[in-house]
Amino acid sequence: MEISFIGSGNVATHLAKACFDKGITIKDIYSKSIENAKVLADLCNAKPIDNLDDLSSDVALIIISVSDNALPDIISKIENVKASVVHTSGSTSIDILKSKNHDYGVFYPLQTFSKNKNVNIEEVPFFIEASSGDLKLALKLFCEILGAEANEADSVQRLNLHIAAVFACNFSNHMYAIAEELLLKNNLNFDLLKPLITETAQKIQSLSPKLAQTGPAVRKDSLTIDKHLQALQSEKHLFELYKAISEDIAKNQNS
Amino acid sequence: MEISFIGSGNVATHLAKACFDKGITIKDIYSKSIENAKVLADLCNAKPIDNLDDLSSDVALIIISVSDNALPDIISKIENVKASVVHTSGSTSIDILKSKNHDYGVFYPLQTFSKNKNVNIEEVPFFIEASSGDLKLALKLFCEILGAEANEADSVQRLNLHIAAVFACNFSNHMYAIAEELLLKNNLNFDLLKPLITETAQKIQSLSPKLAQTGPAVRKDSLTIDKHLQALQSEKHLFELYKAISEDIAKNQNS
Repeated sequence: MEISFIGSGNVATHLAKACFDKGITIKDIYSKSIENAKVLADLCNAKPIDNLDDLSSDVALIIISVSDNALPDIISKIENVKASVVHTSGSTSIDILKSKNHDYGVFYPLQTFSKNKNVNIEEVPFFIEASSGDLKLALKLFCEILGAEANEADSVQRLNLHIAAVFACNFSNHMYAIAEELLLKNNLNFDLLKPLITETAQKIQSLSPKLAQTGPAVRKDSLTIDKHLQALQSEKHLFELYKAISEDIAKNQNS
Repeated sequence: MEISFIGSGNVATHLAKACFDKGITIKDIYSKSIENAKVLADLCNAKPIDNLDDLSSDVALIIISVSDNALPDIISKIENVKASVVHTSGSTSIDILKSKNHDYGVFYPLQTFSKNKNVNIEEVPFFIEASSGDLKLALKLFCEILGAEANEADSVQRLNLHIAAVFACNFSNHMYAIAEELLLKNNLNFDLLKPLITETAQKIQSLSPKLAQTGPAVRKDSLTIDKHLQALQSEKHLFELYKAISEDIAKNQNS
């Protein structure tokens, strides 16, 4: 199986490296910056290109992993390829790829990818949608080669998965970032919070998050909440976030 | 070493069980509800009481683990005991315990405790403050018996630790709860998000949360953010939280 990647960001990097590790041949890595294309191409023995006309004509699958903003322009430029084309975007409908010239689909990995942190691809659930039964089957087999879980989701489900992932991942990570900021201001090391963060994430493996909730907001401990808000008064953005999220926790517990 | 507990909530339960497991004798468990006192007392071979006058007079240490709201009343009623008295509250100053009759201090475990989820006490960092050097030493030795890490923190540092913990634990858990709600509404299983939640919490063991951030807000991917906000329009509280946290992520990245 031979494939090409369009994109060289976090998702493209992790996917291409995982494919290479599993013995899949990667022909081209496209990026509008040839330097970025080279960095990733070197890691997976591929050809770096910065012109979409240079895409190899004989690959079976082209994976587009670029920002949602960049998708329409890329897609318009590869309208005539014969290979099947998939994107990896959570929030973009399959319909953006509609074409008479090739099959098309979605290959969405539900995970957080940073360049300097390895991820075990076998623990990443993929969400698949395809314009044909053949491509759907191929994408499932692709997951099998990667050792990853294949799930089906239509574009509406995938959008909601992506929104849920933003809350569960990006927003919880921002809560960690705020905590780090507060500790640094008080000469305390962020390491002190790591056991708590680990336990919080572990807890919901066996308990529903609603049942796992602890702390002043769910206890409706107004004395403590007021102390915290008073301490945050000089940092308006933290004050407002603390208040809004605490109110939402209290409300949620009633429902 | 013989101690007594005032309180039978999540923190008291986990602490008392850990003490019992490590061979510390627990004399009394006080709760204003004798039924609640009994449940915990049975687990650690202690005497359940619902009247503070019944506290054993010969213990070395009394640990008060009650809600912050309940602290003043409890403290006024044990003013004359000879044992050292500590509370386990993150956001309450040591001064609330001030007494001429006994040493006093704080023994704050930085962890999230739910009754139906075991926690390894050896992985809980404790934060200690004491009115005397002797009590400080005793509390450190207490941690040593528990196999837990002892740290010193004054009341201002501890308040900020608690606020940071609310963000890192309670608020990130609420983000999980919102994600679960969104998935259930779309006939998707919350299990699908568990690898992502695990990876997000693992990532910050080696990367600063600010550097670990991914997703539309940090990329300033306004197209995706707008799609998400549009999908959340019918749920005003989620719309507002999504907007506020995304804006805070984008701002934070510039600073």
